[in-house]
Amino acid sequence: MKTSEDRLIRQIARLGKSQRQLGLPLGIGDDAALLEPKPGYQIILTCDWFLEGTHFLRRKHPPDSVGWKCLARALSDIAAMGGRPRCFLLSLAIPDALTGRWLAEFLKGLRRAAREFRCALAGGDTTRKAEVGISITVVGEIRGRQALHRAGARPGDLIFVSGVLGMAELGLKRLRRGGMPSGKPNPLVTKHLYPEPRLALGQWLAQSKATTALMDLSDGLSTDLARLCAASCVGAHVDLAQLPCWAPPKRKQERAKPNNSNSEALQAALNGGDDYELLFTVAPKSVKRIPETYSGLRLTCIGQVTRSRHLVLSTPTGRRVLSPRGWDPFRRKSQG
Amino acid sequence: MKTSEDRLIRQIARLGKSQRQLGLPLGIGDDAALLEPKPGYQIILTCDWFLEGTHFLRRKHPPDSVGWKCLARALSDIAAMGGRPRCFLLSLAIPDALTGRWLAEFLKGLRRAAREFRCALAGGDTTRKAEVGISITVVGEIRGRQALHRAGARPGDLIFVSGVLGMAELGLKRLRRGGMPSGKPNPLVTKHLYPEPRLALGQWLAQSKATTALMDLSDGLSTDLARLCAASCVGAHVDLAQLPCWAPPKRKQERAKPNNSNSEALQAALNGGDDYELLFTVAPKSVKRIPETYSGLRLTCIGQVTRSRHLVLSTPTGRRVLSPRGWDPFRRKSQG
Repeated sequence: MKTSEDRLIRQIARLGKSQRQLGLPLGIGDDAALLEPKPGYQIILTCDWFLEGTHFLRRKHPPDSVGWKCLARALSDIAAMGGRPRCFLLSLAIPDALTGRWLAEFLKGLRRAAREFRCALAGGDTTRKAEVGISITVVGEIRGRQALHRAGARPGDLIFVSGVLGMAELGLKRLRRGGMPSGKPNPLVTKHLYPEPRLALGQWLAQSKATTALMDLSDGLSTDLARLCAASCVGAHVDLAQLPCWAPPKRKQERAKPNNSNSEALQAALNGGDDYELLFTVAPKSVKRIPETYSGLRLTCIGQVTRSRHLVLSTPTGRRVLSPRGWDPFRRKSQG
Repeated sequence: MKTSEDRLIRQIARLGKSQRQLGLPLGIGDDAALLEPKPGYQIILTCDWFLEGTHFLRRKHPPDSVGWKCLARALSDIAAMGGRPRCFLLSLAIPDALTGRWLAEFLKGLRRAAREFRCALAGGDTTRKAEVGISITVVGEIRGRQALHRAGARPGDLIFVSGVLGMAELGLKRLRRGGMPSGKPNPLVTKHLYPEPRLALGQWLAQSKATTALMDLSDGLSTDLARLCAASCVGAHVDLAQLPCWAPPKRKQERAKPNNSNSEALQAALNGGDDYELLFTVAPKSVKRIPETYSGLRLTCIGQVTRSRHLVLSTPTGRRVLSPRGWDPFRRKSQG
């Protein structure tokens, strides 16, 4: 006889098929999962909350995007080390009323992300709760001592970011204003709902040996750059004019390109969270090895690492201190 | 400049000291943690919820017991494989109001368990939430292919449990009735608040090669034995008279010993959760290798594995079906 919890676990376990092929001798259904480590590799471990009310809203976020995003953002931490994902554990707290259609859609999004980023479900824990709560643990791997850390940036290094910053924040604003967009998908809303961890870029940066420090942008550039600088005991000088901000395509023929005259887009690029782009530093002598784009993803130099431990922003009207104004769950009001 | 979240992480990170000695090249403060796997060992992965309102009550459970128990119960899954813990990740959602004294006490209990069971904090994620939510991921290891699974019990095998069953359930009832006990600690309440994962016993069982299947008792014998039997495609016959139930010491000289005339204690032994004792099966030819006690912990044969896939309970009044009536978060009313 199966308990209700056992039935739920069976439904989730369908994501974990063919686990033996993925180096998981034992997966869902036992007390714990077993993983066969590869010789010469280190194991990367990371976990990430994704909570209703804090990280998503049940009325605004489609359940398949909740499934996709909870894994994608945890995978971004693997990208931030230059690693390759192996498997993940899903801790799911869910109201009884959502164990039907909502759960099925959630698992569809989760399965899509698990396939796309080649990360197998290895196990987890389920429980009942009035609000949806998700904690994802991802296990990755990286060869030898190739992992890139936040600490490592040196004065004089150049600061790079991937992609366009602030899109996810602008997408969230649009989602909050207008509910779910109908018709063709909006690129800002898509970026917010279905972010892509920069795994391939992270792995390339770790192998290229040009990078001195690496992290992902989850809480906004102003907050995350401050963390990278603190870990490296350095400061930074960022040039506002260089920030890759979002600009809507004005005509059909015209491609989206940076446009730093838009104050909302600039604020989002500085402080908006959830972009999951990569932030990295490169020694001046290695800069020529960083291409303008990597697999179609733009790489932009936005400033330089400084010896003085302050964060400074150059703007058209002069210099000012760049304060962390990104996402912080323990600050009462969100700013920026 | 530190954000509030960064300050909280620093407070938690004090648990993760001397991580390099523990084979963790990189721990708290970066995007992810790094673990150096031992050659010839498999990695064990498990995660466990511990939620306010579901698994503990803020008014009834002292914060240091919340810290102890959230790790101890996750470690029990490592014991259930026969493994040795290496490190853990802490996902903590906490209300602003509890980041002072409550958090300090919680971390004290967590630190005590981490030391006692030699399991280092490797990383985690923190966020703000109106109710406390905890998800713990434990990483363990086990040599070669020594891990014991739930599947493996064969008809004719004898069924054993460690310790006394139902104590945690009786302790919870006492806690609910009377609040926190004053004066000298009550063994039932202590068992509920500060359970001990049977790591040493699990490791010994994995090495002894006498055991055919192993799991831990977290949701109650009737539920967990059904899971072991389902995984092994077998049934079981349990003798009620053999169950190691709680009996209070009647006189100062008399030691606590089994007393199966107490209906409340019997029900708790059959269906009570949170004991974190071990349930294992042994082939008849290996039974002589199972001692009566292991490091002072009683090991009791409670029945036998059967070919017919039913769970049967022998009682003084005859035989009856043993239905899973233990803890199941998705059943509306708790039973038993």
